[in-house]
Amino acid sequence: MAQNDQGISCGLDRPTNVSVSAKPVEIKADGSFNRQVNRFTTPFGSQPGELPVEAGRYRLLWSAACPWAHRSVIVRKILGLDKAISLGTVSPLRPRLQHVDWEFSLDTNNQDPILGVQYVSEVYKNTDPGYSGRPTVPVMVDIESKQAVNNDYFKLTNYFETVWSPFHKDGAPDLYPSNLREEIDALNDVIFHEVNNGVYKCGFAQSQEAYEQAYDQLFTRLDKVEERLSNRRFLFGDFITDSDVRLYTTLVRFDAAYYTAFRTNRNLIREYLNLWGYVRDLYQTPGFGDTTDFDAIKRHYHLSITIDPNKSEVKLLPKGPDLSVWNTPHNRERLSNKAEKFLLQERK
Amino acid sequence: MAQNDQGISCGLDRPTNVSVSAKPVEIKADGSFNRQVNRFTTPFGSQPGELPVEAGRYRLLWSAACPWAHRSVIVRKILGLDKAISLGTVSPLRPRLQHVDWEFSLDTNNQDPILGVQYVSEVYKNTDPGYSGRPTVPVMVDIESKQAVNNDYFKLTNYFETVWSPFHKDGAPDLYPSNLREEIDALNDVIFHEVNNGVYKCGFAQSQEAYEQAYDQLFTRLDKVEERLSNRRFLFGDFITDSDVRLYTTLVRFDAAYYTAFRTNRNLIREYLNLWGYVRDLYQTPGFGDTTDFDAIKRHYHLSITIDPNKSEVKLLPKGPDLSVWNTPHNRERLSNKAEKFLLQERK
Repeated sequence: MAQNDQGISCGLDRPTNVSVSAKPVEIKADGSFNRQVNRFTTPFGSQPGELPVEAGRYRLLWSAACPWAHRSVIVRKILGLDKAISLGTVSPLRPRLQHVDWEFSLDTNNQDPILGVQYVSEVYKNTDPGYSGRPTVPVMVDIESKQAVNNDYFKLTNYFETVWSPFHKDGAPDLYPSNLREEIDALNDVIFHEVNNGVYKCGFAQSQEAYEQAYDQLFTRLDKVEERLSNRRFLFGDFITDSDVRLYTTLVRFDAAYYTAFRTNRNLIREYLNLWGYVRDLYQTPGFGDTTDFDAIKRHYHLSITIDPNKSEVKLLPKGPDLSVWNTPHNRERLSNKAEKFLLQERK
Repeated sequence: MAQNDQGISCGLDRPTNVSVSAKPVEIKADGSFNRQVNRFTTPFGSQPGELPVEAGRYRLLWSAACPWAHRSVIVRKILGLDKAISLGTVSPLRPRLQHVDWEFSLDTNNQDPILGVQYVSEVYKNTDPGYSGRPTVPVMVDIESKQAVNNDYFKLTNYFETVWSPFHKDGAPDLYPSNLREEIDALNDVIFHEVNNGVYKCGFAQSQEAYEQAYDQLFTRLDKVEERLSNRRFLFGDFITDSDVRLYTTLVRFDAAYYTAFRTNRNLIREYLNLWGYVRDLYQTPGFGDTTDFDAIKRHYHLSITIDPNKSEVKLLPKGPDLSVWNTPHNRERLSNKAEKFLLQERK
């Protein structure tokens, strides 16, 4: 993965213009979207210079709207890390400020009750007073110092799945099995470029050519995944892996947000036979549906993401799609050789 | 039908602000869209004061994007009135002017070759120099005087179907049978309020409440029509009527335009069993598909309708949906007792 395409950010906003140039800094000359690079990437671990793995030491900040943050919240829940790492939730709606930020406006007094901050940018500046990029979620914050210590969303779930294992709940599944890591990493890379970030490349493109290129790449990949899922229940077989978590966070937002807001309108996910069964199968699994907030997703992508803070305009929330279908039978068990409850248990 | 909701206009643009009030004149206090009233409504006929029915006397102006104009072009084609009434076509893209207009920019020198005008507003002002509403299509223009004489899109197809019958081609179908006129008029009224103009009420609403009310009314009606079409091939049985033409022009634009641009996103039309078969059945019938220009429809609703002429912004054309499906088998013949070719023949 190219470093300058990986980024650390949630990215749930229009590309920012933090330079004085006419074109936003995250838009290339050809009009394509080029996600900002990583910033706080110190790994978790027990080696010198690594971030210590300690229960109660960190707070994970997320927005329910954000697919990059959602993946870490799903893995945290599945592995039972919710007892070791607390969670702070910012509003899906951007504050009306000149700069792009996330705000704790869902909390009393608009402050995170543990960190006492109103904006995510504050913990970034506690670490780096000169930080000039977009303050993004997910971010792991050292509670005592109130400093952002890691916002490397690409690797965060892998840390949760490996070096954080001493704090996994009993019977937690292995989402990142040693014998499959190479394959999972390779697939994650493709999912990132062509699907997770692929929808953003469609939505943020500023030239017709860049948009169409991203659109073609996205649907070519979805067609391939549709085929892959025709004879196995999940991406690697009968069990859920880190790759399924990553694919899920984009698929679950697709029909309610991206199809319209990002012009990814060749097909709805519910029009695919296998992907539609697959994403409902995951949705109906603990850790997935119970961390999916469609209201936050819809409000963010349809109301907040297009708001120019300097302009008051009427923005309405699309009423559709019908969300009652998410709990309908998916019939994916037919592809499984194992008892369903096994999927998220006894996997270690 | 309430006079102030019927209108004469194509309406394919944001509600205009031709007064000095802060709110556009076509928006009511509650944020709902209130289409402008009729202007040139003198009927065609042989009575004193009526517009004479004469071959070669009038030119019909339309935009391929506009559903209100499209209905008159379909009926003109089906009935063979193309020899009696010529057709001028404006661009689906609005000119970049301070006022809302339609332009003959598809023609050489940006002028209609018969009328010699660049903008539709010119023929309106030839009739009424003080005309201050939106210049709209469809409009029938007296070629000699270059004056707009009738832009009553609600009744125009009925004139074509009745008093214009001396110029129908041999074997032209009867789209407005005497014994069904009362029922057709009643259904047309419902289709207008809840479907044809219903999508505009969704798209142009300036309050969440007005939008949701229009959305609920639209889909409640579509569900009822879906049911109605479960046991008959067309709205009144085995034959096409004026009501089918009116329903078609909205349905054929729905997935490619309204679903995203107007937030009518509960369901795509292609997700309905009967409506999807029905609209393809019509599309594959001479007069319908051959007058349907998806490229014009997409460019209008996604590029032109949201352009603020005073602001330069990047607007991209959604690449989807897949339009190749329109000629797939619809299997609606199973609901018909008559030979398929009968539908548009021998109906008089």
